[in-house]
Amino acid sequence: MSDIYVIGHKAPDTDTVCSAIVYAGIKGYKPATAGPINEETEFALKQFGVPAPEVLENASGKTLVLVDHNEPGQRVDGAEKILAIIDHHKMNFNYPDPIFIHVEPVGSTATVIAKMFPNEVKANKAYAGLLLSAILSDTVIFKSPTTTEEDKKIAQELAQVAGISDITKFGVDLKKAKASIKGKPVADVVHVDFKDYDFKGKKVGIGQTEVVDIEEVYERKDEFVNYLNELKNSKGYDMVIFMATDIIKEGTELYYVGNAAIIEKAFNVKVSGPSVWLPGVMSRKKQVAPPVEKVYLEG
Amino acid sequence: MSDIYVIGHKAPDTDTVCSAIVYAGIKGYKPATAGPINEETEFALKQFGVPAPEVLENASGKTLVLVDHNEPGQRVDGAEKILAIIDHHKMNFNYPDPIFIHVEPVGSTATVIAKMFPNEVKANKAYAGLLLSAILSDTVIFKSPTTTEEDKKIAQELAQVAGISDITKFGVDLKKAKASIKGKPVADVVHVDFKDYDFKGKKVGIGQTEVVDIEEVYERKDEFVNYLNELKNSKGYDMVIFMATDIIKEGTELYYVGNAAIIEKAFNVKVSGPSVWLPGVMSRKKQVAPPVEKVYLEG
Repeated sequence: MSDIYVIGHKAPDTDTVCSAIVYAGIKGYKPATAGPINEETEFALKQFGVPAPEVLENASGKTLVLVDHNEPGQRVDGAEKILAIIDHHKMNFNYPDPIFIHVEPVGSTATVIAKMFPNEVKANKAYAGLLLSAILSDTVIFKSPTTTEEDKKIAQELAQVAGISDITKFGVDLKKAKASIKGKPVADVVHVDFKDYDFKGKKVGIGQTEVVDIEEVYERKDEFVNYLNELKNSKGYDMVIFMATDIIKEGTELYYVGNAAIIEKAFNVKVSGPSVWLPGVMSRKKQVAPPVEKVYLEG
Repeated sequence: MSDIYVIGHKAPDTDTVCSAIVYAGIKGYKPATAGPINEETEFALKQFGVPAPEVLENASGKTLVLVDHNEPGQRVDGAEKILAIIDHHKMNFNYPDPIFIHVEPVGSTATVIAKMFPNEVKANKAYAGLLLSAILSDTVIFKSPTTTEEDKKIAQELAQVAGISDITKFGVDLKKAKASIKGKPVADVVHVDFKDYDFKGKKVGIGQTEVVDIEEVYERKDEFVNYLNELKNSKGYDMVIFMATDIIKEGTELYYVGNAAIIEKAFNVKVSGPSVWLPGVMSRKKQVAPPVEKVYLEG
């Protein structure tokens, strides 16, 4: 078997893991993940009878195909020899040799792979099911503003092959698999998807969790606010934001610690406590980080 | 008509210009070049009855598709909004939005485009002829070490569509169109394709010209050596190299000013004057810059 590994980014999500499995399968490479898989991905793998890939926390000496990421900071430790990149993110990549790179501005890497290998994917129910899961996950069941018409069209085709008759129901079941925060420590919930930003020299942290029942978050409001305060004070943040995004109601309860005026300006709202409901806001990348950065740059 | 321009790198060559024309034609965009085209490209355009594209020396405010390059330093002035990249070079690209990027490690961008649009290219004799010209130019009629089996295979297919029965003869005619240095000032010949390198803090310049008759270079040896000395002294180079590459004999007469011991070590030869014949050496990128850099790093 080939000694080439196909691997996604650190803190693996469903798109990164399923894209690695399918691309590796089609090319005869080995799939791997840069860390343990989450409950949502586990649900998808189980649904289509596919085993979890090898966890590769250090890739020294290995030849890698990177899927679903390209920036150095998101790579598995020890990544050196890169053979190819398949992705849907912005590019921040510098490499001494010409290599194969294919990036499309669509909602998920799975969409890119389904377009690259239409015949292989149509002939394999499990591949179609995994890619469908990845598209639904990354586009938040087509509700994320990153969704394109191509993602929807490809998902329809994949659902047919995978034998999924109700795409939305399948998407909600998939999301539910990791959406409940019951019994999870707040630190884990805040950090499952957390990014640091530098806004005009100030450190701002923004975490996000998707939930299917926002009440679970409301019940633990004080816990979240206390934890965000602790984080801000101990790690030198100017502001810490936590997005509890309800994918059914399509909106975000945004918790924050820091200067309330920044939140009011960024989202054109009045706030009267440590959180505010922002209807329609689903994406950190497109709807939260840019307006907050804008206030910092203007201020 | 679309307001999107497809454009290649500065100091345009045949691959960059023909790739821009064909990609623009297929996509309904406008072809452009970042500077005047050279005699070789002119020959190819004439051969297939295609007009030269618009010269766009400043692209401010335009939306661009970049072909045959991606690094910021090689871009047309004023390039800001980039929609897509089609290339065969190493990647050094950082952009804030996800965009379409397709790069393959083959001998020319023309090969990449022929693979992306097989039907469109097969249906258009001029497109096939331009892409064939670009492949022959960039791979030095398949003699460059950057040539892949795919370049050769695609070139055969394109030649059939373009009505070229003798590929090698066509390639030599193409190369001859700009290869003669008769009547050209030495400074122009040395600078038509000249790159500066930083080797362990020392500035090294390497120029290259392809010729079909090395005697033309030998006749003007003193002129070249005097000019290289002048360049070294006036611009702070530690070494200046000029490659006169004979594409028929398949080798390079390498002129240099600087420490002869570096040349001897780099190419494992004895030198007894300002130049040395290196059989089989065709590529600055693969066969000259790396061994010279190695000596600097070791020294």
